[in-house]
Amino acid sequence: MATKPGIPKGTRDFSPEEMAKRNYIFDTIRQVFHLHGFRQIETPAMENLSTLMGKYGEEGDKLLFKIQNSGDYFAGITDEELLSRNALRLAAKFCEKGLRYDLTVPFARYVVMHRDEISFPFKRYQIQPVWRADRPQKGRYREFYQCDADIIGSDSLLNEVELVQIIDAVFTRLGIRVAIKLNNRKILAGIAETIGEPDKITDITVAIDKLDKIGLENVNAELASKGISQEAIGTLQPIIQLSGSNTDKLSTLKGILAASETGMKGIEECESILRTLESLPVRNEVELDLTLARGLNYYTGAIFEVKALDVQIGSITGGGRYDNLTGIFGLPNVSGVGISFGADRIFDVLNQLDLYPKETPDGTQLFFVNFGEKEAHYALPILAAARKAGIRTELYPDAAKMKKQMAYANSKQIPFVALIGEDEMQEGKVTLKDMSTGVQQRLTPEELIASFQKQ
Amino acid sequence: MATKPGIPKGTRDFSPEEMAKRNYIFDTIRQVFHLHGFRQIETPAMENLSTLMGKYGEEGDKLLFKIQNSGDYFAGITDEELLSRNALRLAAKFCEKGLRYDLTVPFARYVVMHRDEISFPFKRYQIQPVWRADRPQKGRYREFYQCDADIIGSDSLLNEVELVQIIDAVFTRLGIRVAIKLNNRKILAGIAETIGEPDKITDITVAIDKLDKIGLENVNAELASKGISQEAIGTLQPIIQLSGSNTDKLSTLKGILAASETGMKGIEECESILRTLESLPVRNEVELDLTLARGLNYYTGAIFEVKALDVQIGSITGGGRYDNLTGIFGLPNVSGVGISFGADRIFDVLNQLDLYPKETPDGTQLFFVNFGEKEAHYALPILAAARKAGIRTELYPDAAKMKKQMAYANSKQIPFVALIGEDEMQEGKVTLKDMSTGVQQRLTPEELIASFQKQ
Repeated sequence: MATKPGIPKGTRDFSPEEMAKRNYIFDTIRQVFHLHGFRQIETPAMENLSTLMGKYGEEGDKLLFKIQNSGDYFAGITDEELLSRNALRLAAKFCEKGLRYDLTVPFARYVVMHRDEISFPFKRYQIQPVWRADRPQKGRYREFYQCDADIIGSDSLLNEVELVQIIDAVFTRLGIRVAIKLNNRKILAGIAETIGEPDKITDITVAIDKLDKIGLENVNAELASKGISQEAIGTLQPIIQLSGSNTDKLSTLKGILAASETGMKGIEECESILRTLESLPVRNEVELDLTLARGLNYYTGAIFEVKALDVQIGSITGGGRYDNLTGIFGLPNVSGVGISFGADRIFDVLNQLDLYPKETPDGTQLFFVNFGEKEAHYALPILAAARKAGIRTELYPDAAKMKKQMAYANSKQIPFVALIGEDEMQEGKVTLKDMSTGVQQRLTPEELIASFQKQ
Repeated sequence: MATKPGIPKGTRDFSPEEMAKRNYIFDTIRQVFHLHGFRQIETPAMENLSTLMGKYGEEGDKLLFKIQNSGDYFAGITDEELLSRNALRLAAKFCEKGLRYDLTVPFARYVVMHRDEISFPFKRYQIQPVWRADRPQKGRYREFYQCDADIIGSDSLLNEVELVQIIDAVFTRLGIRVAIKLNNRKILAGIAETIGEPDKITDITVAIDKLDKIGLENVNAELASKGISQEAIGTLQPIIQLSGSNTDKLSTLKGILAASETGMKGIEECESILRTLESLPVRNEVELDLTLARGLNYYTGAIFEVKALDVQIGSITGGGRYDNLTGIFGLPNVSGVGISFGADRIFDVLNQLDLYPKETPDGTQLFFVNFGEKEAHYALPILAAARKAGIRTELYPDAAKMKKQMAYANSKQIPFVALIGEDEMQEGKVTLKDMSTGVQQRLTPEELIASFQKQ
């Protein structure tokens, strides 16, 4: 007797109903990408470990799924090494390949390998799964999809503007109200420069982020506990309490960061992006937020993050400007900017807000009940003609009990049912039943097809 | 200095141009699946090795990509075991998971796990990559996509008919002329039974397949060399030389296999499928071919294979009936039938016959040249309105030299270019250039958008 099968923890099967929802999300994002001239690429699931290792920090290296070499993977390893049982070191000998951890590093690798075929600026999108050997928990999976759009080879801020437009268009189409948060790595660097604490930027943003929860006094205490001087904390006060419109915030920052060239450059970038967006029909609010610090070591300019307004959940989209991503593969001085939509969280948000369209665009429209061999053979050419006319239709393959056949049609939410008996065959007709109204009509096959085309 | 990056052998990157072609294939197949009421599922890339091992024969087990356990994968392994360096045995300890080898075994696993949610017959399709540690060679990859459609939970032969219709519709839409070859495992079993050589079926089909190449005498010699008796070879003569229409072939077989109940059942199944297909608008020829022996141990009834008529290449689609696939996971007596489209070979066939549509359905339609900041800001709201109207459009992000911008637009084969200078801004207009005719028109933004909607 076989044991009941399972799947690896942190992975999921997707049923037809779930796939319809996921495809709705992917198709919406894809359409917006196309409206902006982005084109799709795909890269292999497996990359050489030399491509992946060292790109995601020490913790990231541990979270890479490694693929054992085929054949004799013990070749070239001494007994001593084996007995050392050094899991990490020996993994590098047992395994040459790993599963991709994100879409960004493979994209950088792609750009470097194919630089001679690409005409820059390269606007690419990529929708593929990634894998991380993270501890699985609610909402965190070991296999999940990323939907990335990047523009590489242009440092124009119009690219940042375009990405905000894309974010706005995607969430408007999905019906999710969001706040689009904007920050700039150069402003953060300017702050650190101004208070003389260049390596405390993460501590500072983390502390500021807690203002609403723990209050100003506790934020200041936390900053002090991180070794930041009282003088620096004093300088930080207007930044911690930064409020008002984006213009107000930027004007406050200008005063504090006046002496920092980098800081002023960051402010100028934000101003330019926000000013351009003002002339455009952006539905969701774009808000300057200094607490955004994602991928600090990675991003060099703008940083984006998107929060759903009506659901409590982490960031559902993020991204930013990176000035030297391809440098790690030997192609320096290529600037890029990109965003990544978190399909799994968007899936949850749409579920919680019940925002999925009621009709599945790809579902069967017309179901033929099978009353027996003769009726089935009468029906088959009608099905063929209907499909030729673009109608999604199926005949139940067995002459099973009516109840069973109707249960099948209902489980697939098929809106129209065709019935064929003696009378219909004699008249050369089909009885069409509208399942939502119960209304029945006896139609010729041509009339049947025409009735769908009118809809 | 970083070394030049590469990708694992047998894997591929897909450029935007290649992706457009692949999406054309996948979308065509998907549309036909939907017209027939099939719904999509997805399963994880990683399956437990216990799910995969032993399902593809000994050779298959070796071709599975195995994923090393996270953390200390040496735990529970003795020094002695380690020093044995038994690669296959230790792999089972180092690795619990592997990459899927096909879509069929994960599907069987899915059906068993989700049987209570599924309403049978279950018509599912699945388009996902699979991985095999095969030796890479021309046209053979370590990562490739399969496009499978299966109907599980119904033994009606109307399902076989429907799969032939799907094959016919897909290749008709793609413009590839094919021969759809049909065989039946029960006929092969009947032949083996009749000549008293039940385990020589593969040898027999392989030998018969060579008739055209090596002639009857050599085929008979080969059969003898496989240990088949002269008497049996005598009985086989009319089968080896089987020719004429499908009806002729079946009538010859009826004479020879009259005493084999299994054989006669196979003939009856073929007759039923072919008879039903005759009443339907199938464009490509369906041909009975006894040399089809794919997946003998796997299939129990109909066997399908599709050959392109105008390109020399192996089978581009295949499938068949299996009566006990879910039995290996503890759910016996569920019959299924399915087909698998070989996307990579179809890609090659379309390339060789130059059958791809000339226009990319998702490509940019309208390109705005960037003449400077002022012009760009004038253009941006027009782009936003155009996108809202469904026009795929982009503005070059930098005010680069005209030549460079046009080279970019040409590389993306963008059919229309919008030009905005002093005059256009004063008049509130845009100059639209049709790149195929060279004709220029000065239009208001509304007229510009309307001109695309008319097309």
